[in-house]
Parts: sequence; structure tokens; C-alpha cells
Amino acid sequence: MSNKKEKVAVIGAGSWGTALAMVLADNEHEVRLWGHKQEQIEEINRFHTNQKYLPNIQLSESIIGYSSLQEALEDIEVIILAVPTKAIREVLGKIREFQLSKLTIVHVSKGIEPDTLLRISEMIEEEMPNDLLNAVVVLSGPSHAEEVSLRHPTTVTVSSHDEAAAKRVQDLFMNQNFRVYTNLDVIGVEIGGALKNIIALAAGISDGLGYGDNAKAALITRGLAEIARLGTKMGANPLTFLGLSGIGDLIVTCTSVHSRNWRAGNMLGKGMKLEEVLENMGMVVEGVRTTKAAHQLSEKYAVRMPITDELYRVLFNEYHPKDAVDNLMGRLKTNEMEDLTNLLNIE
Amino acid sequence: MSNKKEKVAVIGAGSWGTALAMVLADNEHEVRLWGHKQEQIEEINRFHTNQKYLPNIQLSESIIGYSSLQEALEDIEVIILAVPTKAIREVLGKIREFQLSKLTIVHVSKGIEPDTLLRISEMIEEEMPNDLLNAVVVLSGPSHAEEVSLRHPTTVTVSSHDEAAAKRVQDLFMNQNFRVYTNLDVIGVEIGGALKNIIALAAGISDGLGYGDNAKAALITRGLAEIARLGTKMGANPLTFLGLSGIGDLIVTCTSVHSRNWRAGNMLGKGMKLEEVLENMGMVVEGVRTTKAAHQLSEKYAVRMPITDELYRVLFNEYHPKDAVDNLMGRLKTNEMEDLTNLLNIE
Repeated sequence: MSNKKEKVAVIGAGSWGTALAMVLADNEHEVRLWGHKQEQIEEINRFHTNQKYLPNIQLSESIIGYSSLQEALEDIEVIILAVPTKAIREVLGKIREFQLSKLTIVHVSKGIEPDTLLRISEMIEEEMPNDLLNAVVVLSGPSHAEEVSLRHPTTVTVSSHDEAAAKRVQDLFMNQNFRVYTNLDVIGVEIGGALKNIIALAAGISDGLGYGDNAKAALITRGLAEIARLGTKMGANPLTFLGLSGIGDLIVTCTSVHSRNWRAGNMLGKGMKLEEVLENMGMVVEGVRTTKAAHQLSEKYAVRMPITDELYRVLFNEYHPKDAVDNLMGRLKTNEMEDLTNLLNIE
Repeated sequence: MSNKKEKVAVIGAGSWGTALAMVLADNEHEVRLWGHKQEQIEEINRFHTNQKYLPNIQLSESIIGYSSLQEALEDIEVIILAVPTKAIREVLGKIREFQLSKLTIVHVSKGIEPDTLLRISEMIEEEMPNDLLNAVVVLSGPSHAEEVSLRHPTTVTVSSHDEAAAKRVQDLFMNQNFRVYTNLDVIGVEIGGALKNIIALAAGISDGLGYGDNAKAALITRGLAEIARLGTKMGANPLTFLGLSGIGDLIVTCTSVHSRNWRAGNMLGKGMKLEEVLENMGMVVEGVRTTKAAHQLSEKYAVRMPITDELYRVLFNEYHPKDAVDNLMGRLKTNEMEDLTNLLNIE
């Protein structure tokens, strides 16, 4: 457990924000949890629960819910930004209005902004003026919120260009159940986190088509290779993709029924149309937006991404999922090492 | 599908040998399937089934069962050796007696011989005189036999020091459902296949203790790192561990309830003693022997293998599984990149 007790505001009271607030409360920090729904915040403060997002979990009484962003930010140096990717610019716009001093912003979202093709840390740097931004840190890894809230063993990576900021965040969260590693490769950590959702959609499709674990393991293995190929071209260290925020997160997202990207893919594999699936899910399926962004990135950086390409056709060109998987099986290289060597020796 | 039709003997009529015989039969080769149980061979020839090992699967009538090893080997140039690691030397001893011409031996077993610490291909080279051995090829990858027998999409790697032999075996097996890649790194392919069973045992223990997907993903990620560390010291190309026979096979073995090593670990995690587990399984749990061998290898090559070490204590020193997992969570490095860099820069 960390020594110094800090005041931390968690912005976003979904399942992940709430689970992270629990870790911080276990470490005896002063934890403020902001959400925009008045009744949810009342539930947190009266009953110390957040039933919609973490059913049957008792929160520490030391977690205080805030519905006023301005109040939540008072005297705060570190915020955990746990809102959907789509909402990040809007929320930062509000924070900018209220904030008086420099912030360390820890983001825990996974995605790439469509069209601008920015990573989340780049979006944050764009939105926050220098005099309000101390450092941006990303926290990522194989970490279902439900399991963290049950204090099951979990490992994550924190990454920042500012090593001191990464270590401060490591100290904030580290305890016996929640192990935090530092890695200075922000690009690798963010790209791994974002692009895993594409492979999770593809894995869900494969499962939905009735294919088995052999096919899924092949997709994950080849998926890791194409993520690493793109990430390395963008400036990441290829080794990061072998770590917790790379293959670790990819495995958990592709093999767990908790994963909403996998669930969406599964429905597609069973024959549902994309619009039906999105309606049926009733929540954000980050991988759909990310597929579009990754498709654009693969063109921009001239990187071969066969799984992303096939998924793009399924999502946006009404291509049949079975044809997509059959194409993938058919067209892979036959010399594995040639392909793997490309992975780490980009051109 | 391959062009040239060959005569192939599959030695060992368990689930994997039988499933591979089906792939060969789909490719219209002449397939002989040898097993030592008379009634099983009769079942294969009369009913074209192998109910004990592949329930409810109809075999091609072109697969001919043999209970005489000598007859099965007549005029054969290629055999698929699909017997448990323990039985390999004995079976090769018999093959040596009957065999008159040079053989290409494709082995599909996964393990390290205890005490000698030999890989399977090395055992084969030791047992077979030069004038009877054309080449040794290993076939490995994420491939549950049940799924292969259902013709679900599956990918595997074949590897040999003899490139022509690897390509011949690739041609024998390759078809639309069963994709075969070549890789010349025999050490990497064999070490990945053998050591994944250790991590599968550990993953089963974690699940048996009631820990979740986060913990399991961390174990798989860190497990890959320690397998690659040892393998690289032994002469493997580290990139092989990123391929189908490395991370691919590791994922399928750790996340599927089909896996007997995972099942054995699961029982250990639930509090059973090793002897009870082995009795309960009633079949070979390769990972137990492999843990002992890997433990010896880690000392021989002076490689840090924390998961193997903890598992060794659980299996052979009555260490409590929970303490082992807690130790692992506690003692990992806090700088992820330092550790990952070590992975590929083995001095």
C-alpha cells in the first residue's frame, strides 16, 4: 500500500471508474467519484452502492459521490478520467472552465478518435492548456471492473512520458490485489488497449459462427501481430505488445463473456445486422469506431492489417462474416517466421 | 489440398492421432492408423468410429486401422508419431526392428524428457539410427483434436531442420480447414509446446482458487515471458514464441476446459492433493512431468522462471496454491519494460 494519502477525483461513475475508486479507497486516499446522474450519486452517498454498474458490491463509505464537477475538482491535483472516449472532449471542456491549478490526468479509456486518428492522451493534450496540465498518464491492462471490485488479483500498466507522474500513479493504486507496473511507452500502451477491441469483435464473430477455440487462438495470435505491426510504425516499442496492456488485455477481452466487444461480435457472427446489434447492446461498442480508425491508420501508415480489413468489410460493407473468416484462413502467409520477423524488423 | 497422394502411417490412435488421420484422409492420402488395443482397431475398421477418443465422430472409410506395427509400416516413408511422450522410446524401439528404409518422423507430442532434459526431436534422433531416419518434423499449435475432427478452422506450425521435409509435411496436411505454416526454429516450437502445459496448470490453479480472468491473463502474459526467456537461452528464436506454437497454443490450453492440464490445475486449486488429482484424471498430465524438467532446465541455464518455481513447490513440496499465486503477484518487477527488454536481449 502507498504511503502518501492523496485527494483524487474519479471522473465517471461507470463500472471501471467505480472499481478504480474502490482500489483508491482501499489505499485510504480521499476519493471523490463524479457522475452526471443525480440519482446515481445519491445512491452512492446514501447506500454506498452503484447497482447499475457494479451489482451487489458494497462501496467504502469513504468514497464520496459528487454530481457537481466544480465541487469534485476543488483542491484536486490528480484526476482519473473514466468516461467513454466519445465524451472525453466535452468533459475536458468543462474541467477547463473550473480548474484553477495544474492537473495530472490519468485516463483509463480505450480507443482512437475517428477522423483525427488521435490517441486519447493526444486528445487530452489538445484540449488542456499547458498551464492546467501537469502530466497525462494512461492506465491499461487485463482488468474487468467486476473482478477488481471483488478484489481478485489484477495487474495493470501505467504509462506516461513523465516518469515521475507514472510512479506517482503507481503508488496511488498499488496494493496486494492490484499490481501496477510502469512502462514509458505511451504509444504502445494506448494502441494495444484500443486495437484489442477489433480482435475481440473478430473473436466474437468466430464464436458466433460456431467455430472453436483453435480458430479463436489463431485470430488472437495473428491479431497481436497486426496490432504490433501498426503500433511499431506509429512509434511504439514492439515489446510493449508482449506485456499486460498488449497480449494480456487482448486475451482477457477475447476470451471472456464479460467483454462487450466480444458480445457484439458474437451477435454479428450469429447473423444479426450491425444496427440491430448496436440497438441490442444499448451501450457503446468501442471496437466499431476503432475498426474505422484502425482501417484509416493502416492506410496512412501503409501497414498490412488483414483482420482489421475483413472486419471493416463486415461492419461497413455488409460482407458476410463467414466469408471474412474463410478469407483470413485462406490468405495467411505459409512461412510463419517471415511474417514474425516483419513484426520486429519493420522495413 | 495437396497434389501428391502419399501413404502415411499414424502411430497412436488417441484423439490427436485420429483427428490428424482424418485430415490426411480428407486430403485423399492412404492413411493407416496404428493402435495397440485390438478392439479399438476393430471398431475403427468395422464401424469407422473411435468412440473413446472422438465420441460421435464418423471417420472416413479410407482410414484403415492396424494392430500390427510391422504391417502398418510396410512401404511407408512418413509416419506421424502420436503417442504419449512417455511411450516414445518404447515405440521407436519397435519401429527400429521392423523398419527397412529411411523414415520422415512427424511428432505431435509435447513435453521434455525428465532427467535427460531432451526435447522430443532429440529423443527421436537418439533412438533412430541414421540409416533409418530421413528427417524429424514437429507439428504443433493451437489445435484441440475435437475441433479438428469437426473440421473447424485450425492453424498449426510444422518445423524441422530439414526445410524440404517441413514443406512435404505442410503439403500432406494443408487444406481449407487446416492451415499449416512452416518455421525452421525447431527448438522454439518444441519448447513452446512443452512449457505451455506448466502455465495451463497454473491457470487452472488460479481458476480453482476462484480468481478471475484478470489473474489468468496476467499468468499467461508472464508465462509467455518466462517460456521465451528459457527458450531463447536454449537457442530458440524469441519470435517463435509470438507465433501459433507459442502464444497461440498457450492461449488455447489455458482458456479451454478441454485442456487436461488446466483441469488438473483446477482440482489442485480447489484443494485436492496431487496424487488424488492424478488418480482422478486417469490419464497423463504432461504438465506435471514438464514442471520438473523445466525446473531443472531453469537451473541448468540460470534463467529466472517464477511461475515454474512456484508451481514446482505446489506440486512437489506441498506448498499451498494460494500462497504460490500471492507470491507471484507480490514479487513481479514493477518496471514492465525492464523485464520485457530482458526477454529479447538475452546476453
